[in-house]
Amino acid sequence: MLKIDLNCDLGESFGTYKLGNDELILDYVTSANIACGFHAGDPSTMRKTVELALSKNVKIGAHPGLQDLIGFGRRNMAITPKEAFDLIVYQIGALQGFTTALGGKLEHVKPHGALYNMAAKDEKLSFAIAEAVYKVNPELVLYGLSGSELIRAGEKVGLKTASEVFSDRTYQEDGSLTSRLMPNALIVDDTKAVNQVMQMIKNGTVKTEQKTDLKILANTVCIHGDGEHALPFAKFIHQKLKENQIEITAFR
Amino acid sequence: MLKIDLNCDLGESFGTYKLGNDELILDYVTSANIACGFHAGDPSTMRKTVELALSKNVKIGAHPGLQDLIGFGRRNMAITPKEAFDLIVYQIGALQGFTTALGGKLEHVKPHGALYNMAAKDEKLSFAIAEAVYKVNPELVLYGLSGSELIRAGEKVGLKTASEVFSDRTYQEDGSLTSRLMPNALIVDDTKAVNQVMQMIKNGTVKTEQKTDLKILANTVCIHGDGEHALPFAKFIHQKLKENQIEITAFR
Amino acid sequence: MLKIDLNCDLGESFGTYKLGNDELILDYVTSANIACGFHAGDPSTMRKTVELALSKNVKIGAHPGLQDLIGFGRRNMAITPKEAFDLIVYQIGALQGFTTALGGKLEHVKPHGALYNMAAKDEKLSFAIAEAVYKVNPELVLYGLSGSELIRAGEKVGLKTASEVFSDRTYQEDGSLTSRLMPNALIVDDTKAVNQVMQMIKNGTVKTEQKTDLKILANTVCIHGDGEHALPFAKFIHQKLKENQIEITAFR
Amino acid sequence: MLKIDLNCDLGESFGTYKLGNDELILDYVTSANIACGFHAGDPSTMRKTVELALSKNVKIGAHPGLQDLIGFGRRNMAITPKEAFDLIVYQIGALQGFTTALGGKLEHVKPHGALYNMAAKDEKLSFAIAEAVYKVNPELVLYGLSGSELIRAGEKVGLKTASEVFSDRTYQEDGSLTSRLMPNALIVDDTKAVNQVMQMIKNGTVKTEQKTDLKILANTVCIHGDGEHALPFAKFIHQKLKENQIEITAFR
Repeated sequence: MLKIDLNCDLGESFGTYKLGNDELILDYVTSANIACGFHAGDPSTMRKTVELALSKNVKIGAHPGLQDLIGFGRRNMAITPKEAFDLIVYQIGALQGFTTALGGKLEHVKPHGALYNMAAKDEKLSFAIAEAVYKVNPELVLYGLSGSELIRAGEKVGLKTASEVFSDRTYQEDGSLTSRLMPNALIVDDTKAVNQVMQMIKNGTVKTEQKTDLKILANTVCIHGDGEHALPFAKFIHQKLKENQIEITAFR
Repeated sequence: MLKIDLNCDLGESFGTYKLGNDELILDYVTSANIACGFHAGDPSTMRKTVELALSKNVKIGAHPGLQDLIGFGRRNMAITPKEAFDLIVYQIGALQGFTTALGGKLEHVKPHGALYNMAAKDEKLSFAIAEAVYKVNPELVLYGLSGSELIRAGEKVGLKTASEVFSDRTYQEDGSLTSRLMPNALIVDDTKAVNQVMQMIKNGTVKTEQKTDLKILANTVCIHGDGEHALPFAKFIHQKLKENQIEITAFR
Repeated sequence: MLKIDLNCDLGESFGTYKLGNDELILDYVTSANIACGFHAGDPSTMRKTVELALSKNVKIGAHPGLQDLIGFGRRNMAITPKEAFDLIVYQIGALQGFTTALGGKLEHVKPHGALYNMAAKDEKLSFAIAEAVYKVNPELVLYGLSGSELIRAGEKVGLKTASEVFSDRTYQEDGSLTSRLMPNALIVDDTKAVNQVMQMIKNGTVKTEQKTDLKILANTVCIHGDGEHALPFAKFIHQKLKENQIEITAFR
Repeated sequence: MLKIDLNCDLGESFGTYKLGNDELILDYVTSANIACGFHAGDPSTMRKTVELALSKNVKIGAHPGLQDLIGFGRRNMAITPKEAFDLIVYQIGALQGFTTALGGKLEHVKPHGALYNMAAKDEKLSFAIAEAVYKVNPELVLYGLSGSELIRAGEKVGLKTASEVFSDRTYQEDGSLTSRLMPNALIVDDTKAVNQVMQMIKNGTVKTEQKTDLKILANTVCIHGDGEHALPFAKFIHQKLKENQIEITAFR
């Protein structure tokens, strides 16, 4: 039977500021990537989100980002690989504090935003990130863009990796996501979005913007947790995958 | 043979800002309390300080503080016990990330500055701190002011505790330190300072400002790491304790 | 004709985080207190909020707070009067940068949250705040709790002051607000809330929790900008004041 | 008579962290660029530095940087021109709060670190910065790398500009500074360093690494305030310029 993991970025509230529908979205995903206080999240939000994920039996991962709260970790920053190593160790450690304190377990790591995107194309940065994850705990699964440098780095250091694909983004023939600055970057039709994922899971390919069929590995699909449409889409893809006999289960 | 632990706050640099003589002071202490990024320290400083402590075979502890970088964690803040729990778990976790990644082990926790002082007198705050430490790792030793609420809370939750005394501060008959706002708060004469410690270790008492002899438990002495006089005093007390057949060894 | 100013805290969003109904609430208030980046707000939010207030012809004030973003400036912090002076100058200056750049004018200053509450009872802190405001611009109006130390300090340094009253909070016979930890701290009935304000404006008194009539000066009423009920209440009080021939106009 | 301005980055301490020899270096420079709390500096440091500069009769400028305290504003960040506009207005405003409160006057603006370097080559970013400066106060002088986009942008919006040159950095034939990653980036010999500046002032040229003579405008020389060699070099260049009948005076 075919399998897929549905992951979502959660715990992105900060102090008095609330973001996302964490409690509701957790019913439709199998892995939660929890912000660690650099680009979003704070100690109390982290504790509450870990409690919530444990209560819903969803696998917990760290979602470390750049130290850019004001930019939500979405602005590229020229950090060195060593700095990346350090900020990854710090943030994984911090979240692991909460999973341990609350009787849970940290399962995976997925870098956030600009860090995720920079790592996808940067071999040295990716290696530093993968090494940081491995040294904190070699059993952790590294989540990265399918076909990216981050996945290669994870394999090189000896980590299990989960190749992430997107339902609502179009692909270029080199395997990269179409830039959000381009028209056609987003797939707004829900059925099209689910069909793209279905093709990835069943055939291991994706139709690119250049009309080619690209081989792509799909271990996990990124589900958005924020915005009005997030919850309906999470329900929809969840239902469609089930109807197609695809098992929705955390990656292992 | 009588024993004492010498502990020092380290890793208090931040980014481009350097503070303290970490490398040199580590030769004279047995336990290092490493700042965790809230009142001081940052991920790279934490990694370097853990590396240094490991290379010098000094026991590593977390030194969590209030989220007040600009005030160096020295200004009281009205945080709730729950907030204290959360910020302690976060900071211990973050430092433990580095000890694990570098092949070391986290041994103890000592709250910093205003958090240490507020906890000394606040039962609920102390209990939340002690519980946080216990839940991350029940084997950790909790460092607190000798005779304080924090020590009582540590014992209540089942932690091993290390009662901290000061060589360069005078004591009140209720066991509290003389406020820095008062004259005679500080002992500036090195020989007097060492003699106070010696009396604490040998007799289990301290002469208070009210001329009474107060019972006091001395497991560990706080050594300063910053300022011009820090290093000479560390050497001096180290030598004097040895001359008096007191074994200088990490608390266990 | 009787007059009253309606003021509201605005510009409390931060980066990707949105807070409040700034655009809508501005239709019902005459003075906007804009957060300055310490407890809330950021440079881009400040610019947008100043633009919005200018477009709605609402008077602009600075709303400086403690440097405690994670606690939204609501947690007391032991800052010195000198530190208060410095953080007030900094934040007023920053907001004045935007009013100047956008062709507007800064009219008033109202401290936020814990800073407002601490100042209400602390003569030295209040004096430092008032002095900071005066030195940046002696024409600025200082907003403070009616009958508080902050109002006294403002008068002492030579500032025009606006005495602030609350529609939805009950008062103690000493003129302080009933603590939120007590029952009856809040007035949840809108008509009661408006009637309290009306009595303050017309009679210059408020009925305290001890059933006494307390003299109180009401120059401005605090209107909340956040929460589901904020907008309906703003409309309601606006309408009721007009029906009672009370002119709603910025304080001068 | 030939003239030159000597400028120095000051006020880069933060909280308990001290950086630079501000008090001593102020005796040898004519313009002080004061950090504004984003990459370095804090409200109290800013006040003290403005007081110091006023007491030494040195012209005061704002030295705004990226919001990257941990990286001291030296790491490139992908900010938009609009974000640059906003952070420049904010920081200039904040510093102007202090110059006004202390009876002084803000004279110029020099972006810091990565913001300075990115602006040197980015027309849109430079335009946003220049516009921000102009809108806060059209009388301010904009400091930028001689021959850079920032200088061009300043002229375009109608600001007076000061072209900055470096004594201790070598130049490429396109007018850029040799990257610090290259050998020969730095001029370590003090006499050579002063001679380079002398040639710039007297001949309006600089000898590039490619052995060509490049035309260069020198209005102001950057003097370092930090490091052991900073003060002796400041004295040395000050003396040599005087011996060569070059007037050291603030740019106007």
